[in-house]
Amino acid sequence: MTDTIISSASKEVVIGFDRPFVMIGERINPTGRRLLAAEMKEGDFSRVEADAIAQVEAGAHMLDVNAGIPLADEPALLARAVKLVQSITDVPLSIDSSIVEALEAGIAVYEGKPLINSVTGEDEVLERVLPLVAKHGAAVVAISNDETGISEDPDVRFEVAKKIVHRAADYGIPSHDIVVDPLVMPIGAMGTAGRQVFALLRRLKEELQVNSTCGASNVSFGLPHRHAITGTFLAMAIANGMTSAIMNPIHNEVKNAVMAADVLAGNDRDCAAWIRANREPGAEGEGTRGRRGGRRRSS
Amino acid sequence: MTDTIISSASKEVVIGFDRPFVMIGERINPTGRRLLAAEMKEGDFSRVEADAIAQVEAGAHMLDVNAGIPLADEPALLARAVKLVQSITDVPLSIDSSIVEALEAGIAVYEGKPLINSVTGEDEVLERVLPLVAKHGAAVVAISNDETGISEDPDVRFEVAKKIVHRAADYGIPSHDIVVDPLVMPIGAMGTAGRQVFALLRRLKEELQVNSTCGASNVSFGLPHRHAITGTFLAMAIANGMTSAIMNPIHNEVKNAVMAADVLAGNDRDCAAWIRANREPGAEGEGTRGRRGGRRRSS
Repeated sequence: MTDTIISSASKEVVIGFDRPFVMIGERINPTGRRLLAAEMKEGDFSRVEADAIAQVEAGAHMLDVNAGIPLADEPALLARAVKLVQSITDVPLSIDSSIVEALEAGIAVYEGKPLINSVTGEDEVLERVLPLVAKHGAAVVAISNDETGISEDPDVRFEVAKKIVHRAADYGIPSHDIVVDPLVMPIGAMGTAGRQVFALLRRLKEELQVNSTCGASNVSFGLPHRHAITGTFLAMAIANGMTSAIMNPIHNEVKNAVMAADVLAGNDRDCAAWIRANREPGAEGEGTRGRRGGRRRSS
Repeated sequence: MTDTIISSASKEVVIGFDRPFVMIGERINPTGRRLLAAEMKEGDFSRVEADAIAQVEAGAHMLDVNAGIPLADEPALLARAVKLVQSITDVPLSIDSSIVEALEAGIAVYEGKPLINSVTGEDEVLERVLPLVAKHGAAVVAISNDETGISEDPDVRFEVAKKIVHRAADYGIPSHDIVVDPLVMPIGAMGTAGRQVFALLRRLKEELQVNSTCGASNVSFGLPHRHAITGTFLAMAIANGMTSAIMNPIHNEVKNAVMAADVLAGNDRDCAAWIRANREPGAEGEGTRGRRGGRRRSS
């Protein structure tokens, strides 16, 4: 079906249906992280480095890199972050900014085929970002809102996604290089947020046949025990066809839900990744499970 | 849409789309529990009592009661278990046996409208169980296999479910009193087990518009960290329209997945049940969460 290939200098990741879900680490993003923002602004990228390594060790297949700091030189910061992360990890990156100049600066230093995050359905944005995507043969995240804002009607959001796919085609960008973000709202603020996204994901898969991603943590904003909500959301989204997410793989509840969903969707052959990750107490990504090792096989 | 009402003498439970998922406690079942089987056979029902109370305290909306012990007087044991459980809890029961005489004995002592578990698509079984369901105005679990066994093709299983619904109609049993079990196989043995069930659940909801249930724990049989697989399976099944399950609500990973799925499906109004259950460390059903209370709101 639809394969979106993203690469670094040495590694390729494929986002696609009937494939293991692609986890894109969300942590390198100063939005809402005051300390990280202050450090990056002052040129201290040690936390960026630590976050990159920790997320890859936790199983991230890709990393999102964002340097959106108010009153800072975002293009320079994003380029530096991209370069740094590529120098210490080999996973492909999602270059994340709402400022086109920052995207340009990040792409200029990137080695491989990046995922450009993002373009919306707004004409002005389409006209600036799509030529950039086409010029670099990149893939792009398409956010399903436009000049009228974010509709609560999944059918309206579907039309926005379709418009972006069609407009991209005019620039020679194939639909398999477009990864649609259906936009996930906090479920605590909007009780229909889940249903909207699930309905949209199904149409994206069945009708538009494009890959999808989202900022998963947003769904649980403001709720207690939020990692359980985020993990369960990801499983339900995967059940409806979502193929990647920008998320935090360091939280076991979130990561385990994705890995279990891969098993249940039939995309973890012979449950090999699941068994490997859960084989022994303290095994890969399962630091908290040693305590109940003896009960594992009982129901 | 479709409401299946089950009751005890004092309590009603409604299984339905757009409603909170109904958790049916699985524990009162000697299959694979040698100690429980031996005790029940000798007339010691103390463990049945403890399991009933523990499951209701953990949040079970209903309890499944099974007394299937080889070489024992199953009708007498099942009747005694049903009577005992009804004397100490007020939740409605699922009366569970593959022996029609045992079902009859259980129903005879039951107060309220039970869920009879189960009937298959085999003609001989249909002809014996459906009159019993009709006579008592009960609801019934319809298992989607027939004389030819369990098909791996969800479309074949759908046809079996449809046959049972139509045959039940001949006996005056409305389709809202039929809860279809799509039959869940262990995912470790059959990698397509999840996909089969999800596809079938979707057709059951959209085309046949009937409620559904399953023995959820079976899906994770033989795998490490199985509660995470079972919980994730339930979330994905709910995302595809499943409305109840026979499961173990005592395991937090399983129960939390169901409660989170209710939130995300928009069936936990204002997230009220979720917030109540997770409000404070050590609160209802959240015994293990006190340790990380301070991190709850961080991503």
